[in-house]
Parts: sequence; C-alpha cells; structure tokens
Amino acid sequence: MKRILVDAFGGDNAPLDVLEGVLESRKKCDINISVVGNKNKIDQISKENNLNIENLEIIDCKTEIAGNDDPMEILKSKSESSMAVGLFSLSQKKFDVFVSAGNSGALLVGTNMIVKRAPNIRRIAFAPIIPKLEGKFLLLDAGANAQCSSEILHQFAFMGVDYFKSISNVENPKVGLLNIGSEDNKGDNLRKETYQLLKSSNLNFIGNIEPNDILFGDCDVVVSDGFSGNIFVKSIEATIKTLICLFKKDKNNLDFLKNNEHTYLNQKKFAQESYSVLLGANNPVIKLHSSIKSSSLCEFLISLNENIK
Amino acid sequence: MKRILVDAFGGDNAPLDVLEGVLESRKKCDINISVVGNKNKIDQISKENNLNIENLEIIDCKTEIAGNDDPMEILKSKSESSMAVGLFSLSQKKFDVFVSAGNSGALLVGTNMIVKRAPNIRRIAFAPIIPKLEGKFLLLDAGANAQCSSEILHQFAFMGVDYFKSISNVENPKVGLLNIGSEDNKGDNLRKETYQLLKSSNLNFIGNIEPNDILFGDCDVVVSDGFSGNIFVKSIEATIKTLICLFKKDKNNLDFLKNNEHTYLNQKKFAQESYSVLLGANNPVIKLHSSIKSSSLCEFLISLNENIK
Repeated sequence: MKRILVDAFGGDNAPLDVLEGVLESRKKCDINISVVGNKNKIDQISKENNLNIENLEIIDCKTEIAGNDDPMEILKSKSESSMAVGLFSLSQKKFDVFVSAGNSGALLVGTNMIVKRAPNIRRIAFAPIIPKLEGKFLLLDAGANAQCSSEILHQFAFMGVDYFKSISNVENPKVGLLNIGSEDNKGDNLRKETYQLLKSSNLNFIGNIEPNDILFGDCDVVVSDGFSGNIFVKSIEATIKTLICLFKKDKNNLDFLKNNEHTYLNQKKFAQESYSVLLGANNPVIKLHSSIKSSSLCEFLISLNENIK
Repeated sequence: MKRILVDAFGGDNAPLDVLEGVLESRKKCDINISVVGNKNKIDQISKENNLNIENLEIIDCKTEIAGNDDPMEILKSKSESSMAVGLFSLSQKKFDVFVSAGNSGALLVGTNMIVKRAPNIRRIAFAPIIPKLEGKFLLLDAGANAQCSSEILHQFAFMGVDYFKSISNVENPKVGLLNIGSEDNKGDNLRKETYQLLKSSNLNFIGNIEPNDILFGDCDVVVSDGFSGNIFVKSIEATIKTLICLFKKDKNNLDFLKNNEHTYLNQKKFAQESYSVLLGANNPVIKLHSSIKSSSLCEFLISLNENIK
C-alpha cells in the first residue's frame, strides 16, 4: 500500500479541515496516511474539536508557511515548516506521495530544490486535472513556467501522457496543443515549433486545440506554456464565478445548483476538484486548492489511494 | 452625420439578416448607411423577402468572401468581393466606417493592405469590446498579432485608451496588463518589460491584472499579446457555452435565461455583443460576430451611429 503524507498546515482551512479530512478517509477505507505539522498545535486543535488522532502518525516540525509568504522562504526562514519537512520526508522515500493545499509558489520552489527534478527532466510543470463537460483533462503547464521553449513543451507532452495513463484506463491519451486556431500553422513561433515536434513524435497528437474544443471534446492532455495555460484555467474559473454570481440572483436556480452535481455549476467545487500535480519531480507532489474543505479532501484522498500505482 | 458602410455579404446569415438589420436601423433612427455587395443578388433576395430597398445605396461588386476562404485571397481572387470593395471605398474616404461580419482573417489582411496602418502605428490590433459582470472592457490584442514585443503592447495601451475615450464618457480609462498574477514582477519577459514601459507612461495604469479581476473589476482597457488575449476571450466564451449547456437541462432555467438580459447568461448574445474594432488603421473597421442576427445588427448600428464621433 502506498504511503501518503499530508501537509496539516496547508490551505485556508488548515489544520482543522485537513485533520478532519484525513481522519474521515481513514474511517472510510484502508489507507496508509500520515500528516506533517507542529505536533503541539495538532494535539491542541484535536482536543478542542474532539478529533481522535490516536493512531495517526504525525511528523513533527516547528512551523508552517503562510499563503502570502515569499515562496523562497521555504529554503530560508521556513525550512522547518510542515511543507519543507514534508517534501524532505518525501525525498528520503519515507512516503510515496506528498499532498499540500498550501502556498503554490513555495511548493514549487520546495519541490524543485528539495525533491528535485527527475533525471533528464527540463522543468517541473504545474499540471491540474480540470473538469470539462464530460470527464476531465490534464493541462500542463498551468503556471509554473511562464517562459517556455518548444523542447520544454515537447517534454511536457510526454510527462503528461505518462501521468494521464497512470490515473486512467486510457491506453493512448490524446494530446492537444493549446492554440488560437486548429489549423497547422496557427499561433506564435513557440506554437509552430512545438507543433512540428509533437507531429513527428510517437504520441497520439490530435493537433492544435482551442478552449471550446477542449471543454466539449475528448482531448486528454493539453500542452501549453505556463503563461497561456494559466490564463486559460483562470479564465474558466472567473467565468464560472461570474455566471454563478448572476444565477444566484434567482432563488429557483439555487435549488438547481444545489441538486446538480456537475462541477461547472459550482465554482467552489470546480476549484476544489481541480487539483494539480507537480509533474517531473523525483517523487510525486500534489497541490490541492487552498480553499479545500474536509469533505473534498476526504474524497480526494480515497480516490488518490485507489488510483496511485 | 457619419457615413456607415456595411458588408452585405459578411457573416453566416448574410445577406438577408444584414439587409433586414440595416433597413430596420434606418426605420428607427436618422442614420446614413449604405451596403456593399452584388446588386443583382441583393435585388433578388429583397424581392423574395419583400424588403423595401428603394432608397438604400448599394455599392455594387462582383463577388464575396466565404468564411473559410484563405484570408490572403482578399488581395487575389477575391479582390472584387464585397469586403475588398468596402475597404477600398473606406480608404477613399467615401465612408467614415466599414462594418463586416465576414471572414476575420481576410478583414485583417484587407485592413492592413487596403486601408493601411495609421502613421507611426506598428500593428493593427483586434480589439473586442467584452461584456463583464458590470459594464464592458476593451481587450487588445485579441488575436491579430500572436507574436508581440513590449513596444507593440505599449502602443496598444495608448490606442486602446484613445478608442475607449471615444466610445465612453470615461476621461482617464484604467489600463491593466493581462497577467498571471497581480504582483509587479509576474509573468514572462514580455510582461515584465511591458509592465515597466506602462508604469513609466502617463497612462492610468493599474498594473497586472488577472481574468477574475477583469470580469469583476473596473479596468477599462486590457492590454495583451494576441495569443493570450485570444485564449482569454475564447476561454470565457467556451465556459459560458459549457454552463449554458448544463443549465438548459432544467426547464426552470430556460425561463430564467429567457427573462434575464445579462449577456453572460446567453452565449449567443455574448458573442453578438462582443464586436471587435480593428484599431490602428487609417479609417475605422469593425468586425461583428459571424453569427449576428438582424435584430442585434440593428441595435449595433443604432448605437454606432450615436457613439461615433
């Protein structure tokens, strides 16, 4: 069974929601899970909230990283934070995967510097799993690397396909290049060069792909530089938020929103279901949305435990 | 009174919807409007549909450009199309503004080559007016220039501000730089360089701006390269389409969608209200959404007639 380590002090609702989510997942299934964080604080909050943490392994550490801390502090003043210690434990192979809802920038810096890049990997990518009309797709990069070369994007495609295979039953995932048109020669120089590299690869490359075809289509892995990938996912989120805001003006729609499970009808659900993998590190690191609640965390951990191979 | 020329053969519903929209706008207000297109075809379709085109000036021409024609054909086999002849008439100052719902690429090529860039303008930008939660904003560039330098983006900001002033009562429009974070040093090299140029300009520059802050905020002019600007606007459209598609599954929502006028609740309305200006040409060229219907065209023409200065 894979060993999962969770950052108890990552996210807006930490540590309470993290602890509740972890404990709930242990009740619901057979799962090997530990948390990292200041033990005294965890003991105290557990007592205050009647949480039974008796058999829960806690990796003790001194402090934690705040959402607004400078990411570089994970290597300096926050080198004994739950995130830093968690990444260090992962790098020592004490665990198989590290999960945090904390500061994205710090997690990226820490993953690069503590867990380190896997051999021959040029860049670690921020790779969210994003819901679409039917199913989900993997986007990489979604913000870790604002500046990319075509060689980097080419490698992202392979990294994305490997990962997508590992979490799905799809044997030959479809790869698309995020672009402003579907024709071969569309986009800027970066896109034109990347298109040629992907076309001559042995991947299941379906060509350039626009936002609409991604949300309504069957592309599994969408390749992008971190700048436009980030604009893409943040535009989806902002639009959902705008529409939900308008819909909530009519209370008939509130019932519909409540009764309908699709993540596009719930901006919080969308954010919480769009977890990101930091692909390309020596060991797997997963970033959850900072606003994640205990119930979503519990669901996520159970699904992670089932799918991790 | 400004003289408006409309491409009778631009768009999916041309020429019938174009003619109906034009005639309707003439009924509703005092407007100086002409159309360009093959006169025989216009006469025929008017007869078939009982349209009274008696006092409508028609600039006659041989042919038209199709939506899927290669844009370069406007200079070659389609140099006598309604779009080409319309742009030529505009360049000869026979009209003050040319409006078309036809092939975007051809309109861009034609504007560059026939109407030509205004003095000192580096690039013509595709600048849509986009609805947001409250009001609208101008985005440039949204797809005409996939590859941009910081000098080009700097100039886009000035072009956008000038135009925004001309269509609004805002004296000092707020300018934002589309970016993946709001901090000063966010983004790739292009963003970092552009940020410095805009910061030291005399514009009302409010800094880097993310999609969410654009849709919920009060930024008037959003500056972007054509690649990420295009991803931004197409992501908004795709998300609206996805959500509307989900909402239509419940018929209670159909009534709400019908009764609520906000453009974010109607993907067609959104597309039709997001018309684009080709900024930076010697004379103004406006691109309407290819799916525009007569009623939206009529509304647009009346508003154009009122606002053009």
